[in-house]
Amino acid sequence: MQNETARIEAFSDGVYAIAITLLILEIKVPPATQPLTRGLLAQWPSYFAFLVSFWFIGVMWVNHHRLFTHIRKADNGLLFANLLLLLGVTVVPWPTSLLAAHLGKPDQLAAAVVFNGTYFFLGIFFNILWRYAVHKRLLDPAAQTSASAISKQYAVGPLLYLICLGLSWISVPASLAMNVALAVFFALPPKKTMAGG
Amino acid sequence: MQNETARIEAFSDGVYAIAITLLILEIKVPPATQPLTRGLLAQWPSYFAFLVSFWFIGVMWVNHHRLFTHIRKADNGLLFANLLLLLGVTVVPWPTSLLAAHLGKPDQLAAAVVFNGTYFFLGIFFNILWRYAVHKRLLDPAAQTSASAISKQYAVGPLLYLICLGLSWISVPASLAMNVALAVFFALPPKKTMAGG
Amino acid sequence: MQNETARIEAFSDGVYAIAITLLILEIKVPPATQPLTRGLLAQWPSYFAFLVSFWFIGVMWVNHHRLFTHIRKADNGLLFANLLLLLGVTVVPWPTSLLAAHLGKPDQLAAAVVFNGTYFFLGIFFNILWRYAVHKRLLDPAAQTSASAISKQYAVGPLLYLICLGLSWISVPASLAMNVALAVFFALPPKKTMAGG
Amino acid sequence: MQNETARIEAFSDGVYAIAITLLILEIKVPPATQPLTRGLLAQWPSYFAFLVSFWFIGVMWVNHHRLFTHIRKADNGLLFANLLLLLGVTVVPWPTSLLAAHLGKPDQLAAAVVFNGTYFFLGIFFNILWRYAVHKRLLDPAAQTSASAISKQYAVGPLLYLICLGLSWISVPASLAMNVALAVFFALPPKKTMAGG
Repeated sequence: MQNETARIEAFSDGVYAIAITLLILEIKVPPATQPLTRGLLAQWPSYFAFLVSFWFIGVMWVNHHRLFTHIRKADNGLLFANLLLLLGVTVVPWPTSLLAAHLGKPDQLAAAVVFNGTYFFLGIFFNILWRYAVHKRLLDPAAQTSASAISKQYAVGPLLYLICLGLSWISVPASLAMNVALAVFFALPPKKTMAGG
Repeated sequence: MQNETARIEAFSDGVYAIAITLLILEIKVPPATQPLTRGLLAQWPSYFAFLVSFWFIGVMWVNHHRLFTHIRKADNGLLFANLLLLLGVTVVPWPTSLLAAHLGKPDQLAAAVVFNGTYFFLGIFFNILWRYAVHKRLLDPAAQTSASAISKQYAVGPLLYLICLGLSWISVPASLAMNVALAVFFALPPKKTMAGG
Repeated sequence: MQNETARIEAFSDGVYAIAITLLILEIKVPPATQPLTRGLLAQWPSYFAFLVSFWFIGVMWVNHHRLFTHIRKADNGLLFANLLLLLGVTVVPWPTSLLAAHLGKPDQLAAAVVFNGTYFFLGIFFNILWRYAVHKRLLDPAAQTSASAISKQYAVGPLLYLICLGLSWISVPASLAMNVALAVFFALPPKKTMAGG
Repeated sequence: MQNETARIEAFSDGVYAIAITLLILEIKVPPATQPLTRGLLAQWPSYFAFLVSFWFIGVMWVNHHRLFTHIRKADNGLLFANLLLLLGVTVVPWPTSLLAAHLGKPDQLAAAVVFNGTYFFLGIFFNILWRYAVHKRLLDPAAQTSASAISKQYAVGPLLYLICLGLSWISVPASLAMNVALAVFFALPPKKTMAGG
């Protein structure tokens, strides 16, 4: 038997590692109907979607890691709250390939809605996991200050992603830019972000 | 050299993590022959099969985790009983894609039989692993009470899944509903389930 | 920094777990040109190849696990001897799909040669890893007896697999049967196998 | 909560293990339009690309392992420097399949430029990770000597890979040969390499 949260972390690390590595499968060898250089350039939406999704899964892994430096105990509910979050993480390669296939084409709105909507749900799932751990007192008691900084940063997440989702109907590029900006925001450690909060 | 069960758990975590993450590969980008929104909606059986299989693999991981909080020692037989269980786990993406391709279509009975049959075998494999560990006294002696609660809950599993399998010939939707209900039953910790047992 | 062999084991566990889980991707949903039941039955070579390869990778994982219960120290050479073995392990899904596509068809000899040849090389790579560890005194000194039982069992491996490979030209089914029999032999713990040795 | 670098290593091991295992998916079953033996031989660029990429990812794993035997502490920046490196690692299967599809054909120059360019960026990312750890004093203080040997070996990496990249325009085979030679150089432990430095 291993330590309870150690095995949750190991399983989650596996899921994150696979999801982030599978992304490259969406980038194909260009068909041989044109010169390779032109075929490679024509695939730019695939590269953009790959980089964005890699960055997102990476930031989510860093956040997961950050949460579990504070979580000391595990119960049955935490296992399922964590599974719900991992559900969102494993889904990411699909909206990525959807966006790669449709960015800059007539149907890009539907693809962007699915893409931004995925991150809206991910924001909610992160809050569920964290608030569950806080509520059930599964945290390291010594980490009170940084834990409440995380709570503050996460509280605004779903609202910001909802705005980002709504923005898709006004401008797809603007919504994608906001999505990337939000990923930068959640990459920063909460203490620094909340210095003035 | 690591602790004996630690490495079994690490290998199993890897298999679970990959099997649960590969599921998304079954959800395709809809073909460009129709508007994307309509194409996305037409894929609902894929989403249903994905969610059900994600939930099942997640519940099986939680159960595997639960068993190994009680298993303290490992021998050669346990390695193979665990491999047999992992065989069943790695198979799951295949009946999932079979169901996704045929649900609501003429051949859905055969797909549902394979799908429900997979879980019948998984129920048997879980029992083999657990009963082997009990019989060979590989358990933590302090965990006698919760171990016998698990034994009781698991004993009814194969029978219930056999009923679910038989139900496929009467009604495919009813058999799938029963399958999902069983997954909820095995998600619950055995103590609570067996409170009156 | 983790313990030296712990990280080799973790990396190897990951490779084994992925290789064994990717096997299912070779089993396809049958094309819709025929009734599903008939299509499922016609795929029997895929199921056979899947089960055999799952069993092989599982047995190789058990053997890797067994070796590393004796290996206490690691050096640069051990990292590369282990990588060579993992090269063979990651290759397994390919001869598996080759065999699945050609078993019972005119070109089955070439497929069987590649399949059996893969295991011949795996037998050699296991010997290289083990003999390197013995030669460089990386083993736990207390495990002298079981280590020499492993050495004896492994020494005959490449020769037996070479016979199995040669048998392909006489009879493909006989060579596959011998290959499966060898996997059973290497699944047994060396002490029992070598009781009379 | 686990040790800080332990979890970075576990996540990285997962990414390396998946990237190295996915490579085999690029080797297909030859189409049935020709005898299998001829089809297998015609696929030689796939085997070459597979072996080279397996070797590269293996060498990069050994190097990552080597760096983290010296890195004792982790901070937020290290997480992201490591993610940048992993980005390069997960990309490897794509230039591999590009090279496999075009080696020996008219468009091999573009494929070789992408292939060699990937390793140029990997050389830079390794330097970023290592120099960040040195600069932020995250290393084990006792490992000063071997750490500076690594610094010396790594410093020349990007320059050598830039020459290799430039060589593609003169001779694709020569650039690939140099790329393989560089992988051998970085496989060697830095102490031996730098014995006279």
